[in-house]
Amino acid sequence: MISSDTIIALATPHGTSGIAVIRMSGNQAFAIADQLFFGKKISEQKSHTSHFGKIKDHNRTIDEVLVAIYKNPNSYNGEDTVEISCHGSPYIIQKILQIAVRHGARMAFPGEFTRRAFMNGKLDLSQAEAVADIIASENESQHNMAMQQMRGGYSERIKVLRQELIDFAALIELELDFSEEDVEFADRNKFLALVDHTISVINNLISSFQLGNVLKKGVPVAIVGKPNVGKSTLLNRLLNEEKAIVSEIPGTTRDFIEDTLQLNGITFRFIDTAGIRDTIDILESKGIERSFQKIKQSAIILYMADITQNPNDIITDFNSMAFDPDQKIIIVLNKSDELNNFCNAYDIEEAIATLTKKDSIEISAKQNKNIDKLLQLLQENVTGNHTSFDFVVSNVRHLQAFEDASESLGLVKKGLEEKISGDFISIDIRSALQSLSSITGLICNEDILNSVFTRFCIGK
Amino acid sequence: MISSDTIIALATPHGTSGIAVIRMSGNQAFAIADQLFFGKKISEQKSHTSHFGKIKDHNRTIDEVLVAIYKNPNSYNGEDTVEISCHGSPYIIQKILQIAVRHGARMAFPGEFTRRAFMNGKLDLSQAEAVADIIASENESQHNMAMQQMRGGYSERIKVLRQELIDFAALIELELDFSEEDVEFADRNKFLALVDHTISVINNLISSFQLGNVLKKGVPVAIVGKPNVGKSTLLNRLLNEEKAIVSEIPGTTRDFIEDTLQLNGITFRFIDTAGIRDTIDILESKGIERSFQKIKQSAIILYMADITQNPNDIITDFNSMAFDPDQKIIIVLNKSDELNNFCNAYDIEEAIATLTKKDSIEISAKQNKNIDKLLQLLQENVTGNHTSFDFVVSNVRHLQAFEDASESLGLVKKGLEEKISGDFISIDIRSALQSLSSITGLICNEDILNSVFTRFCIGK
Repeated sequence: MISSDTIIALATPHGTSGIAVIRMSGNQAFAIADQLFFGKKISEQKSHTSHFGKIKDHNRTIDEVLVAIYKNPNSYNGEDTVEISCHGSPYIIQKILQIAVRHGARMAFPGEFTRRAFMNGKLDLSQAEAVADIIASENESQHNMAMQQMRGGYSERIKVLRQELIDFAALIELELDFSEEDVEFADRNKFLALVDHTISVINNLISSFQLGNVLKKGVPVAIVGKPNVGKSTLLNRLLNEEKAIVSEIPGTTRDFIEDTLQLNGITFRFIDTAGIRDTIDILESKGIERSFQKIKQSAIILYMADITQNPNDIITDFNSMAFDPDQKIIIVLNKSDELNNFCNAYDIEEAIATLTKKDSIEISAKQNKNIDKLLQLLQENVTGNHTSFDFVVSNVRHLQAFEDASESLGLVKKGLEEKISGDFISIDIRSALQSLSSITGLICNEDILNSVFTRFCIGK
Repeated sequence: MISSDTIIALATPHGTSGIAVIRMSGNQAFAIADQLFFGKKISEQKSHTSHFGKIKDHNRTIDEVLVAIYKNPNSYNGEDTVEISCHGSPYIIQKILQIAVRHGARMAFPGEFTRRAFMNGKLDLSQAEAVADIIASENESQHNMAMQQMRGGYSERIKVLRQELIDFAALIELELDFSEEDVEFADRNKFLALVDHTISVINNLISSFQLGNVLKKGVPVAIVGKPNVGKSTLLNRLLNEEKAIVSEIPGTTRDFIEDTLQLNGITFRFIDTAGIRDTIDILESKGIERSFQKIKQSAIILYMADITQNPNDIITDFNSMAFDPDQKIIIVLNKSDELNNFCNAYDIEEAIATLTKKDSIEISAKQNKNIDKLLQLLQENVTGNHTSFDFVVSNVRHLQAFEDASESLGLVKKGLEEKISGDFISIDIRSALQSLSSITGLICNEDILNSVFTRFCIGK
């Protein structure tokens, strides 16, 4: 444990409540606790025990409290720690903090307890960052990603990558010591294969960022289509609620209705756009303008059409939308319940899918047909070939470090292929290692630490 | 311990934070904890110990937590209790509550943990009420009163009073069994002395309510006086801040400036009223109208006058205000620094005090003379002969019970004096006893308990 002053902070939210917890850690935590707590001598108690007694200010009883004791190194941050459970009264909390400060504690900065956990090797930096993500998590997938990261998620994977690179770098650097003799300790072909593998692993992590990001923020899905194809009805089906006004009159939906759906831990944010058509209604045309903006910002477009229309017209209409070719689009052919007996919905769907080269599905929003398949299709479009969220990058700092590492390794690869001298290759390997090390905080500076921990709340 | 189902609730405030504490108590608390906590078997651990482990939902880790264990009867409410310290994430809190409920816990009602503490004899009812007061306390005197009450404050005193009455009631009721024989087991004179004493103790508690109430809510003090006597300057002196606009132009202070001063734990709320004088300025006269309202609502009036004026004029002005004779008034004679050498400020003050029969004091707000003495005078006017806040009634329910008891004892006294039959006296004694018992909850019904505990927050 690094020697440190004793810090204190309220660890629970502000406000009145049954219980509030004040956390104090540092070299003097037990000595200071003994100055304000009356009941037992804190410094003589075992770790992981809880004690009832009074907090006193001189002779005045401030509160009856429970004090839990955690002795270094078996505490959250590796320091001697006391957690005071007092009544959740702002007056009492203030008083206890004041008394502790008077006896030598110092008010903690945001994230300072976790920063000390990092400094004492209880967590690496990416795990520490995950603590803040866990606290901020609002749904299952955010929570899963953060929990995975806090429990060492890709820290372990990075460690392996680093070690392999370090071993080769050591060999190459050894060659430099014998540079006069023109020996090669490091097998260049083996090394090239390793670099290729490492780049592919890192690039896979980089590509997971988009997923990580949408998992963190929710996946925006735009429902687009001509008036009266059933967009609001579909939205209602998806949300199982009557949030949008459903009407037979074309152009009913003037405003964006944004609603969220949790599907296997992924948050989808549905946007129902104003029906797109030629119109002289000014309100309508403003709505259409905003529709196009919303479409651009969405991760997935559900393009809806009326399956009873002429398929050629549907394709012409679809093409006229001139969607960005990179955007994920699912063509949703609605009203299959209204098809006459001579038409086969599945055949029409197949034809349209083939001609547009897009995912497509025939549904009946009215009769709840294939809605489950549509939801499945949506989910697949988000998770792609990432079957688990275990190694998903969701942190911009990590993304940048991985991108830097990938770039450096690209230079290493190029150098190996062009058989340039070992000392240049060594520089690029070191640079890649440094980027990887910065993620877990093996190499980091005050600035990185400050920017990481100011995201935290005080008391964590 | 009364057999009971297992309740659970978040005990800390809502919001994101470092730590949140979820409290669960009841017969099945340990068994349910064993279903969701992985690390150690909770039911096999010692009381007052804390354990690190994971909360899991089937196989998914929801959080890494610390669980503190308190075994009946050594817990807050006397039941088996676990306190789960998890990360302060609304998602995690929600999940843990859900899982516990799935395993048989029930969400607690407001105050239900404390209600169970009462049912299990850990606290009497007035102590339980004090818990809510402690949480709500905002300053030292509120906190002192509540803390005193929680620690058994007048519970003990009530117990003594009850016992004495019970002993006599028993004797009187014994007489009734021998009513044919015309015996007197109870010495009527001794009993009359006891009743007198009890009434006086109770009336003293009743009279403390006004103090308790102002201590709870703050003491409103109106500063009243003709324009330009220095009201705003005095207020600034008292508050040590320049909150009011001080000016030489009469009638500058149009609005009420309400500011608070903490003095030995008492909150004073100062009201600077618009200068009272004849005026045709409509804004001014509205201000004056409101002044009179504020004066009526205040607990203490500081009536300010200019000591350099003719004392007879000062008294005439004072009398023209026609204050309620019961209102506490301190006459503050300002500008003693401007008195000429032939006048003695103290003599003028004495003369005015004698003629008005009010507390008075000469000061110089400008030169900070006697401001300390004025503050002391204010404090004395609040605390009166209550030198400690130990036995101050601040709860309306208690006030009503004491008033009922006092009324019943008045009837007892009358009955004794008029030598009426023991059976009537007995009824009134029982009634007084019942009132006293209701305070500590020795006798109480569901309605009283409901009204007491709905004041609590959930999780307490």
